[in-house]
Amino acid sequence: MTSGTTKYIYDLSEGDLSMKPLLGGKGANLSEMIKLGVPVPDGFTVTTEACVDTMNNGGEWPADLWGQVTDALARFEERVDRRLGDAEKPLLVSVRSGAVISMPGMMDTILNLGISDETVGSLAAEFGERFAWDTYRRFIQMYGDVVEGVPHHAYEDALTALKAERGVENDPDLTAEDLKGLVETFKQVSREHMGEEFPTDPKEQLKRAVNAVFASWDTPRAGIYRKSQGIPDDLGTAVNVMQMVFGNRGETSATGVCFTRNPSTGAKELYGEFLLNAQGEDVVAGIRTPKPLAEMESVLPEAYAQLLDTMNRLEEHNGDMQDIEFTVEDGKLFLLQTRNGKRTAPAAFKIAVDMVTEGKLDKAGALKRIEPAQLDQLLHPAIDLSHGKTPVTKGLNASPGAAVGEVVFDAETAAERGKAGDRVVLVRWETTPDDIAGVIVAQGVLTAHGGMTSHAAVVARGMGKPCVAGASKIKIDAEAKTLTIGESVLREGDMITLDGTTGEVYAEALDLVPPQLNDDFQTIVGWADEIRRMDVRANADTGADAAKAREFGAQGIGLCRTEHMFMEADRLPAVRKMILAESDEARTQALAEILPLQQEDFEAIFDAMTGLPVTVRLLDPPMHEFLPNLVDQSLLVQRLELEGRGEDDAELAEARTLLAQVKKLTEQNPMLGTRGVRLALLYPEIPAMQTRAIVRAALASKARGSEPQVEIMVPLVAFAEELKRMRAIIEETIAEELQAAGESMDFPVGTMIELPRAAVTADQIAEHADFFSFGTNDLTQTGVGISRDDAEGAFLAHYIDEEIVEGNPFGSIDRDGVGGLVGIGAEKGRSTHADLKLGVCGEHGGDPASISLFEELGLNYVSCSPYRVPIARFAAARAVLDAQEG
Amino acid sequence: MTSGTTKYIYDLSEGDLSMKPLLGGKGANLSEMIKLGVPVPDGFTVTTEACVDTMNNGGEWPADLWGQVTDALARFEERVDRRLGDAEKPLLVSVRSGAVISMPGMMDTILNLGISDETVGSLAAEFGERFAWDTYRRFIQMYGDVVEGVPHHAYEDALTALKAERGVENDPDLTAEDLKGLVETFKQVSREHMGEEFPTDPKEQLKRAVNAVFASWDTPRAGIYRKSQGIPDDLGTAVNVMQMVFGNRGETSATGVCFTRNPSTGAKELYGEFLLNAQGEDVVAGIRTPKPLAEMESVLPEAYAQLLDTMNRLEEHNGDMQDIEFTVEDGKLFLLQTRNGKRTAPAAFKIAVDMVTEGKLDKAGALKRIEPAQLDQLLHPAIDLSHGKTPVTKGLNASPGAAVGEVVFDAETAAERGKAGDRVVLVRWETTPDDIAGVIVAQGVLTAHGGMTSHAAVVARGMGKPCVAGASKIKIDAEAKTLTIGESVLREGDMITLDGTTGEVYAEALDLVPPQLNDDFQTIVGWADEIRRMDVRANADTGADAAKAREFGAQGIGLCRTEHMFMEADRLPAVRKMILAESDEARTQALAEILPLQQEDFEAIFDAMTGLPVTVRLLDPPMHEFLPNLVDQSLLVQRLELEGRGEDDAELAEARTLLAQVKKLTEQNPMLGTRGVRLALLYPEIPAMQTRAIVRAALASKARGSEPQVEIMVPLVAFAEELKRMRAIIEETIAEELQAAGESMDFPVGTMIELPRAAVTADQIAEHADFFSFGTNDLTQTGVGISRDDAEGAFLAHYIDEEIVEGNPFGSIDRDGVGGLVGIGAEKGRSTHADLKLGVCGEHGGDPASISLFEELGLNYVSCSPYRVPIARFAAARAVLDAQEG
Repeated sequence: MTSGTTKYIYDLSEGDLSMKPLLGGKGANLSEMIKLGVPVPDGFTVTTEACVDTMNNGGEWPADLWGQVTDALARFEERVDRRLGDAEKPLLVSVRSGAVISMPGMMDTILNLGISDETVGSLAAEFGERFAWDTYRRFIQMYGDVVEGVPHHAYEDALTALKAERGVENDPDLTAEDLKGLVETFKQVSREHMGEEFPTDPKEQLKRAVNAVFASWDTPRAGIYRKSQGIPDDLGTAVNVMQMVFGNRGETSATGVCFTRNPSTGAKELYGEFLLNAQGEDVVAGIRTPKPLAEMESVLPEAYAQLLDTMNRLEEHNGDMQDIEFTVEDGKLFLLQTRNGKRTAPAAFKIAVDMVTEGKLDKAGALKRIEPAQLDQLLHPAIDLSHGKTPVTKGLNASPGAAVGEVVFDAETAAERGKAGDRVVLVRWETTPDDIAGVIVAQGVLTAHGGMTSHAAVVARGMGKPCVAGASKIKIDAEAKTLTIGESVLREGDMITLDGTTGEVYAEALDLVPPQLNDDFQTIVGWADEIRRMDVRANADTGADAAKAREFGAQGIGLCRTEHMFMEADRLPAVRKMILAESDEARTQALAEILPLQQEDFEAIFDAMTGLPVTVRLLDPPMHEFLPNLVDQSLLVQRLELEGRGEDDAELAEARTLLAQVKKLTEQNPMLGTRGVRLALLYPEIPAMQTRAIVRAALASKARGSEPQVEIMVPLVAFAEELKRMRAIIEETIAEELQAAGESMDFPVGTMIELPRAAVTADQIAEHADFFSFGTNDLTQTGVGISRDDAEGAFLAHYIDEEIVEGNPFGSIDRDGVGGLVGIGAEKGRSTHADLKLGVCGEHGGDPASISLFEELGLNYVSCSPYRVPIARFAAARAVLDAQEG
Repeated sequence: MTSGTTKYIYDLSEGDLSMKPLLGGKGANLSEMIKLGVPVPDGFTVTTEACVDTMNNGGEWPADLWGQVTDALARFEERVDRRLGDAEKPLLVSVRSGAVISMPGMMDTILNLGISDETVGSLAAEFGERFAWDTYRRFIQMYGDVVEGVPHHAYEDALTALKAERGVENDPDLTAEDLKGLVETFKQVSREHMGEEFPTDPKEQLKRAVNAVFASWDTPRAGIYRKSQGIPDDLGTAVNVMQMVFGNRGETSATGVCFTRNPSTGAKELYGEFLLNAQGEDVVAGIRTPKPLAEMESVLPEAYAQLLDTMNRLEEHNGDMQDIEFTVEDGKLFLLQTRNGKRTAPAAFKIAVDMVTEGKLDKAGALKRIEPAQLDQLLHPAIDLSHGKTPVTKGLNASPGAAVGEVVFDAETAAERGKAGDRVVLVRWETTPDDIAGVIVAQGVLTAHGGMTSHAAVVARGMGKPCVAGASKIKIDAEAKTLTIGESVLREGDMITLDGTTGEVYAEALDLVPPQLNDDFQTIVGWADEIRRMDVRANADTGADAAKAREFGAQGIGLCRTEHMFMEADRLPAVRKMILAESDEARTQALAEILPLQQEDFEAIFDAMTGLPVTVRLLDPPMHEFLPNLVDQSLLVQRLELEGRGEDDAELAEARTLLAQVKKLTEQNPMLGTRGVRLALLYPEIPAMQTRAIVRAALASKARGSEPQVEIMVPLVAFAEELKRMRAIIEETIAEELQAAGESMDFPVGTMIELPRAAVTADQIAEHADFFSFGTNDLTQTGVGISRDDAEGAFLAHYIDEEIVEGNPFGSIDRDGVGGLVGIGAEKGRSTHADLKLGVCGEHGGDPASISLFEELGLNYVSCSPYRVPIARFAAARAVLDAQEG
C-alpha cells in the first residue's frame, strides 16, 4: 500500500507525456496537448496508482483518495465557473478510462455525469428542452449499464416500447416531452434492477463511476484482450474526469475521429469521419454511419481548418501518426484524445519510411514504430488474383489481408472451433468488446454495420486480421444461423472468403497466394540489418529452399536436414535395404547406393549458398520412421494369415520378415530413442557415408566455381564422449576424401544442443565442438517433458486455455525453463571454449519474443524457415534496440 | 611433464604407508614393514609418478629416470654386497608392479632377473647346479613371456618335448644337465619369436622389465578390471625392484600366502596355504595345490612361529585384516607383501564388529572397512535349504552365495550372453586374468582347479560372486563344450546351481531364498544409523511392503504409488469405466466405485507405518496403460471383421468402441504425454477422489489408534502454476472431508521434481511446495533424453560396452548431467523456501554412489525399495564419513 501522502490526482494542466505510466495514455496526451495550446476540455486525472492501490486493497479506496477527488473537483469548478449538481450553472463531466497501453473499447466510459432533476432545468434553459432531456436519458442509460449493472436491453426495450407507442421509427422523432417521460421510465427500470433508488447526488455518482472504471480493468474481456496483446495485468487504469463538450447541440456541432495519415495504406492524406449533431460514442459504436472528414470543410469550415492544423502539430510533436477524437461544440473545436494510431502492417512500413524521409524520425525510431508481428502480416497470404470469381458483395476494406474459413455466427463458437484448429470466419452484425475471444482465433471478421473506425475494424487491424466491415447488403439471422447475401444463403460451417484489402466477400473458399513484399518493407528490413548484431540464417533442405532463403536475405543455412533426402520415393528402397541389412557389408553396399543421391542434393544447396555457411545436420530420426507402421504391418500379416496363405507364400514371408524388423525397431518413446548420434555410433557407416557425400559435393561445387562453406552438425548429443567419437569418424572420412582428391578444405564440426544434459554439461561438450546450435524444439520436448505430437491436441491446449502456461512453448520459447537451459548451455559452452559460435535452429529462431531472449543471451545467429527470415532480421534489430532501452 | 628434478626412486627404507599414492600399495607396505622391523628383502621402488609421466610422454621415459634407477641400484648393490650381472657375487631381483589400489593378478611380475650366462656359474656354486639352471630357465620363460611377448606355450611346448624325450612326467625329474640344455632351447625359442638375440645384459633386462610393468597398466584386461572396480585409469603403477629370496632352495625353503583372519567367515583363526620348495607364483597361479598353513608348524617351526607373531603385529599396526605373501629361504622368513585382505561380505562384517569389540577400531573405522556393495552381497539370495536335492559334486567354498544359470565354457560367450541379460555360470578349468570380462557378468564361477587363493576365488570374492573352486572331480572339455560330473554330462546352455557358501554344485536349477541378516550386519547398520545425516525411507505400495520396509529400518515411505492399486484385477473394470466415461458425471460415478478400494489400501499402509511419514503420490501413468494395447485391439477388430461378423454384432461393436478409445489415448511418446499432474488437471475428479480416499483412510487409521503422517505428492510438475492449482484442488477436498468428519489433521503437499524444467524453475515451484522428491528415474529419461524401455536393450548397452558412458545412468546417477539438475533444483528450491524438505525416490535412492552425491547436495532423505533400505542406511553413513575425509 502506498501511504496517505501519495498524490493521486493531477489537474490536466499539471501533467505531460512522460507521466504516461501514472496518468495513462489518454491523460498524459491530454496534458501534453494543453502544453501545446491545443483546445482540450478542462478536468483532472485519477492516477493508475490509485487504481492499483485499490485493486491491491481488495477494492477499497485508499483512505484519502475521495478527499483528493473532491479537492480537485473544487479547483476544476472554480476554473470553469460551473459546479457539479448546481441548479444554476451545472457542470457536466465525462468519466473515462485511460490505460497506459491503449485497449480500444475494452474499458468503461460514462458521459454526461452531473445531469439530474436539479440541473436538467437550467440545461434546458441554456440549450433547449429536447437536448436536456435527451442528455438526461442518455446519462441514466449509460450510468445504469456501466456503473450499476442494469442490463442494457432493459433500457432499449423501454425506448423501443415508447417509440412503438408514439408510432415513430427513430430516436430524433421523439419529442422533449416523450424524453422527459422516458427519464422517469428509465429511473423506474433502474430501480427495479438495482433494488434501490437511482442515485441522484452527482458526487455519489462520480464516486461510483470512478470506481466502475477501476473495476472495468478486471473484467474477463479486458483480461482476454490484455493476454492477446501481451499487456501486463498489474498496470491498472487511470480515470479522466473532463468537462463535457457536446457534439449534439445542433447543426453547428459535430463529433468525429481522424488519423493524421491513412492507417490502412499509410498514405499522407486526410483520413477520418464525423457525424453532425452527435456524441462521440455514436461514431465509435458504429450505430450511425459517419461521413468522410473532407465533407466537414463545407459545413464547419473554421473548425475544420483548426483541426487540420492541430493534426499536423500533434503528429510532428509525437513523431508518429496520431489517432484523434474531437468534438465541435457550437462551432468550437475541442480535442478529446490523441494517441499513436493503430495501423495496418503496410501502413506501418510506409509511415515509418516516409517519416524518416520527411526528417521526422531516425532509422532506429522507425524500427521502433513497427511491431515484429506486423511483418508477419505482410507475409500473410492474399487472395490469388487469377481466381476469376465474382464477389457476392462488398463492404469496407477495414483491415487488409485475405481470410478463408467456415462461417460462424457467435464469438463463443468461433473461440471453440478456432482453438480446436478449425479455420473460421466470424460473421456479426457488429462486434462488441465481448466478442474479443472469438476475434482472436478467427481467420477474419465480417460485419454488416459500422465504419472504418468501428470496434471490429480497430480490433482487427490491431491484430492483423482481415476484416470487411459495414457490408450493409448482407442479412444475418443469428438465431437461425444464416447469412443471406443476395440469392445465396450461407449456413454455419459453409465456406467464405474475405478480402480485407478490397472489402470483397466470396461465398466460397478461394486459393491464397503469398504477398509481394514492397519497397517500404525492403527498406525497413535493410535498416534492421544495419542495427542488428545476430546473423540470420535459414533452415533449408533443398537447393530451391536455399535459393528462396537467400532471396529473403538469409546469411547462410543454419539447419540442412538430411533425413528428408532419405524419405524421397526414389531413395526409400535403398534406405530400407540399409535398415534391413543383416551385415555391415550389406549395409555399406546399400549406403553406397544412397551416397551419390545425397551428394547431388548437397551440391545444389552448396551452389545456391555459395560464399555463405551451410550447416548440414547428419541423420537424426530413428530407423523405424523409414519402415511401415507397426499396426499396419501387423494387420497385413494377420490378414494374409486369415486368408489362408500357406507357409511358403512369398508375400506372407516377406510381410512377416518386415514385421519382425518393424517390431525390433519400434520404440515406446521414439523421441527418446535410438536416433541421431546414437544411431550413428551404432552404425558408423552411416555418418561416414554422409560425410563422404558432403565432402565430395563440396569439392564438386568448388570445381564449378562455387565457394562452399560447409559445417557438419551432429544431432542429439548428450555426452561429450559421443561428440568426441563422432568427430573422429567425421574427420577421418574427411581426411580420406581430401587426400584422395588432393584437395584441402575446412569442415568445422559442431553439435545440436537439444537435450537438457547437453546444456548442463556444455562445458565438456564444447571442448569437442566448433559450434553449438540450440535445437529448441527438442529441448522444449525434453526440458518440459512434452511430446509435441501428442500434447498440442491434448493437455497443452487445455493448459493454454486455462492459462496454466503463458502460451504455447513451441511458439514462443518458454523463457524461464527452456530459455534457462539455453542460458546455462551458452554460458557453460563459452566457459571452456571462449569463441564458440552459438546459434539457434528450430521454429523459435523465427519468433520475435524468442529472438529477444537469444539477443539477451548473446547468441551469434538464429536460423528459421525461409519465409520468416525477414521477420527474424527485423526482430533481431528490435531486440538490440529494446536491449539498449533496458 | 614433471621436471627433471623429480625424485622417481625411493629405497624401501625411505618410504612409509602415507606414501601409498606415490609408492603403490605394495611398496608403501614394504617400507612400513621395514619401519616395524619385519624381515623384508632389500630393494627400491620406482614411483607411480614415473609410470604416469611415461604414459603421458607416449611411452618415453623421463630424461633422468634411468639415471636414478642406476643410482638406486648402486646403493642397493652396496647394501647387499652383491651386484647385478656380477660373475662372482650376482644379485638376483624381482621386478613387480605395485598399484595404489590392489589389482590381484592383473599386473605383471618378473622374477629372478640377474641370472645370465655370466652369473649362473656362481649361483650353481652357491646353491647347486640344478637350482641354478632351473632358476635360469624360469627366468627366460617369465621374462620372454612378460617383457618380450614370446607366447607362453612356446616355452611350455619345448619343456613338454624335453620331458617326453627324457621319458619323465614332472619338472623335478629333469636333471641339471637337462635344464642347462633347456636354457639353450629357451634362448632359441625366444630368438625365433623376438627376431633378435635374447638380451644378456641384466641392466638392459631390468630397464625393459620396468618398462613392461609400466605398460601392463594399460592392457585391456587391466582396463576391464579397473572399470569393474571403479579404479581411475590415470593412477599408474609403481614398480618394486627387490632382492630375490628363494622358496625353492630345497626342503628348508617354502613359499605361502596367509590371512590374519578367515577371509570367508571373518573368524579370528589361522588361514593360509604354503608350498615347500616352491616359488610364490606356484601358489597364486593354482598350478600345484598347496597345504594348509597349520601344517607348516611341523616342518618349519621357527619360521612358522615368527610368521604368526608378524601376522599379529601387521594386523594391529594396519587396523585391518592382512593378506600376506611370505617366503622361507633356507629356514629364514621374509615377508614379500602385506595388504588389507579382500574378504567376503559376512567376513567383512564380522571382522569389523570384532575389531571394534577388540578395541582395535572405532565405529567410523569399522564402517570404512566395509564397502556398500558388501551389504548387497549379504542381501543376495541363497539356495532354498528345503530343496532336498543332492549335490552332484563338491569343491572349495571359494566365494559365498548362490548362483543359478546356464553353463558356458568361455569368458567371451559368458560376456556376450550375460550382457544380453541371460543368467550364465562360467565353468573353467581355472580362470586367468583374461577371463575377467566373463566373470563380471556371470552369476557365478565354477573351476576344476586351484585353491581358495587362486585367481578365480580372489576375483569372485572381490565382486561378491558365488564361486566354487577346485572341484577336482569335474571334467571339462572346452572344445566339445561339455562338463562331466560323474554320470551326468552338461552341455552349454544346461542349467546349473552353485552354492559358494558350501562348495556344493547341483546339475539343475534350484530355487533361491533371501538370506537371514545376522547380528554383525545389524550391528554395523545400527552404527551407520548413529553416523548418517540423511533419513532413509522406502518405496512401498501395500501394507505388506510397508511392514517389510519398517522391518528393514525404513523411517517412512518416500513413495507410495497409487497406480498399482488401479491395476489390480478387481479394480480394473471400474478404472476402465472411468476412462471410457463420456461425461464428468459418469466419470465421477466410476471414481466413486474406486474410492473405497483405494481407501482400504491406504489404511493398511498408514497402520503399518504408524508414527512415520508416508508420501502418497497421486496417479502418475497415462490412461492408456489401463486399456488393451493398440496393436492387439486393432488385430481383434480386423479378425472379427474378417470373420464376417455383421454390423450389429455386439462383440464387434464393443471391440470397435474400445479400439476408438485406445486410438484416442495412445500417444507417440507416452513418457512425455498426458499423465501425472496433466491428467489430474484435465480430470480434477481423479485427484479429488484420491485425496478423499487418503483423508478418509487417515481418519479411519487414527480412529483405530494409529498415528498417520501423510504427505501428498503431485507427479510430473513442470510449471509452478500446475502445482498451485493442484494444491487448491487437494486442499479444498481435504477441508471438505475434515469438516464433514469434524476432525483436524495436517497433510503437507509437495511435488516430484522429475522434469528438467522443474529443476530449472524450482525456485518458482518451491513457493507452492512443502517438499520436493527428486524422481531421478524420469529425470534421467528426460534430462539425458533416453527412454528406459527402449534404450537398455538398444544403444545404451552399446554405450556401456564401448565406454561412451561411464555406466548405466539408471543404475548410478549420471553425476554431471542428471546430478547437475538435482543440484540446480535443490539450490533453487531452497532459495525461495529455505526449510523445504528434499528427498529422492526412485532406484538411485538405494545406490551407494548416488547416495554419496545426495549427501553432498544436502538432501534430507533418500527412498528406495525395502530390500535396499539397509544398504541405503549404511551408504548414507559412509557418505558422511567420505565427506569428512574430503
